[in-house]
Amino acid sequence: MALTRSELNPILTCRDVPPSRKGWEVIGVFNAGVARLKDEVVLLLRVAERPLPREADVYLTPLYNPETNEMEVCRIPREGADLSDPRVVKTPEQNYLTSISHIRVARSRDGIRFEVEAVPALEPATEYEAYGIEDPRITPLEGGFIITYSAVSSLGITVPLVYTEDFRSFERRGLIFHPDNKDVVLFPEKIGGSYYALHRPSASHYAKPDMWLAESPDLEHWGRHRHIAGVRSGMWDDTRIGASAVPIRTEHGWLELYHGADTRNRYCMGAMLFDLDEPWKLVARCGHPFMEPEANYETEGFFGNVVFSCGAFLEGETIRLYYGAADSCVAYAEVPLVDVMETLIYTEEAGKPEPERRTTG
Amino acid sequence: MALTRSELNPILTCRDVPPSRKGWEVIGVFNAGVARLKDEVVLLLRVAERPLPREADVYLTPLYNPETNEMEVCRIPREGADLSDPRVVKTPEQNYLTSISHIRVARSRDGIRFEVEAVPALEPATEYEAYGIEDPRITPLEGGFIITYSAVSSLGITVPLVYTEDFRSFERRGLIFHPDNKDVVLFPEKIGGSYYALHRPSASHYAKPDMWLAESPDLEHWGRHRHIAGVRSGMWDDTRIGASAVPIRTEHGWLELYHGADTRNRYCMGAMLFDLDEPWKLVARCGHPFMEPEANYETEGFFGNVVFSCGAFLEGETIRLYYGAADSCVAYAEVPLVDVMETLIYTEEAGKPEPERRTTG
Repeated sequence: MALTRSELNPILTCRDVPPSRKGWEVIGVFNAGVARLKDEVVLLLRVAERPLPREADVYLTPLYNPETNEMEVCRIPREGADLSDPRVVKTPEQNYLTSISHIRVARSRDGIRFEVEAVPALEPATEYEAYGIEDPRITPLEGGFIITYSAVSSLGITVPLVYTEDFRSFERRGLIFHPDNKDVVLFPEKIGGSYYALHRPSASHYAKPDMWLAESPDLEHWGRHRHIAGVRSGMWDDTRIGASAVPIRTEHGWLELYHGADTRNRYCMGAMLFDLDEPWKLVARCGHPFMEPEANYETEGFFGNVVFSCGAFLEGETIRLYYGAADSCVAYAEVPLVDVMETLIYTEEAGKPEPERRTTG
Repeated sequence: MALTRSELNPILTCRDVPPSRKGWEVIGVFNAGVARLKDEVVLLLRVAERPLPREADVYLTPLYNPETNEMEVCRIPREGADLSDPRVVKTPEQNYLTSISHIRVARSRDGIRFEVEAVPALEPATEYEAYGIEDPRITPLEGGFIITYSAVSSLGITVPLVYTEDFRSFERRGLIFHPDNKDVVLFPEKIGGSYYALHRPSASHYAKPDMWLAESPDLEHWGRHRHIAGVRSGMWDDTRIGASAVPIRTEHGWLELYHGADTRNRYCMGAMLFDLDEPWKLVARCGHPFMEPEANYETEGFFGNVVFSCGAFLEGETIRLYYGAADSCVAYAEVPLVDVMETLIYTEEAGKPEPERRTTG
């Protein structure tokens, strides 16, 4: 596997991003969506912040108040709170996040050295975003860009759809999926007259965190939900999976780079292939992941042993992959398309393509 | 509160419904959707069945196999299984239901004495329905009928939409909500050019089982999800709420008869009022429920202390309410519209309507 991490990794860290408000600190810059806009590479960074100072007896938890349109700080006594997961403060009454995330634009000519904007591009703005907005994906579609992200609040995790053409002005188009749902990317073109989205419901009964497909006539209303790929017992992706990158059109199908986690919350990156015309048909899926947390900035950090991409694109025959490492920083890697394709095991029904077919076209 | 239970209650029990297959028994007939079709009242009954015989050491759990299109019987050793909830067999690996439900048509001239069809109208038919189909609602709309129900399987609880004009042939139109979701009713007419549905996501993180609204241009694709009513701490509806009946148009707003449960799983029926033109605005909500489990067929049964309606309609000034009692049987009650309206407490913003306005129009 000829996956190459950038020698400049991590390419973006907390030190590169000024906090959005005085008296706060940035504790993570990670899980960035990516798009190409003219001669630039644009990232939408997830920036996680928390209020200062840290106090011994009280945990300061940030919360957006939709009624006042202000950020507030909740004071939770550490005694009686469960802080075993660094991401969450659990009290008997309610769970809070230890940080609140917004979305920041970064731009680059070479795709590696980025200039980060001084102020947020998207901040919590509704009651559905009181705990923050996280893990943006960018789908290029019909000349514009569709942004989807996780909106987190005490009302659950929902998915807003936002439209932009320039990453300067943004048009909010409502919640496209009810709670709980996340990891939404759209297919970058209509298929058979419909738009399609990969999504990841987190059901509360019976179901596992699997990948689903939905269909839309207009991007704002979605239906015909179909279960398309599940977690795999005893494998590296046995606990949780979700779409990471916008599907890449290849000769043999739509290539989806997805993330999977095991019971110990170790996140790796794998590949699936969906039929070009009937994207609800899983044609092939990797055995082993094409990327695992190995570098020290991936194995150690705020939430270690995590490589989690929110965006990648194909340039020539190379996949350019942006990913969050350890919920702490943004890193970059390149991998030849052919090497990812070779991790795929075709379903019996689909059959493995002929070798000659795989090198032509 | 002049709520009157029928003297013939329960109006339908297990004895009135033949099982769908030999060697099985009907253990519950409850939670029926209702519609008026010409001079008839039509019920869609939820019929819960299980295989016989009961065995001492092994629990026989019914399951639909979508690959063979057959009902199968799972043998779960009772030892090691958690049977504390009569509805569920819990094993360390997976949860199963103790019965499987299908939907049966019953017809009546007087709305109280029903003739039950000999065979199911809708049975599990897809991978999303392997554990059964439950709790149908019927929305009369533009001359036809929209049926929504809970499809239960190891893929979660989803909501299919089915269209019929006569309750003899049925057209399936896909899953309109991803897991987990249930308690879906549509508004019986377009509002401002859109269709609207009440729904109840069961989120796995942060959120409570509250009521949401979704919007659609075509009944099959839904978006603009909005949270519209929550559970109320310390009250009779503090644990779980969901839409029960198709909203009834009144002078003061859309009257929604909903169910609520407390921490002890005691289910009652209450009322809410939504703005006629902007149905995402909650105008009023009851303090106390208009119906509580009191009759012995409501307090005792397969799952006692439950009154749970899936359908009601207004005739003149009287609400005719069909409801499941104790997850065992179907019962009927009548209540004057004015008495339900009097349970409503208007929001400060909406203000209470003038008394003279309430008796006219």
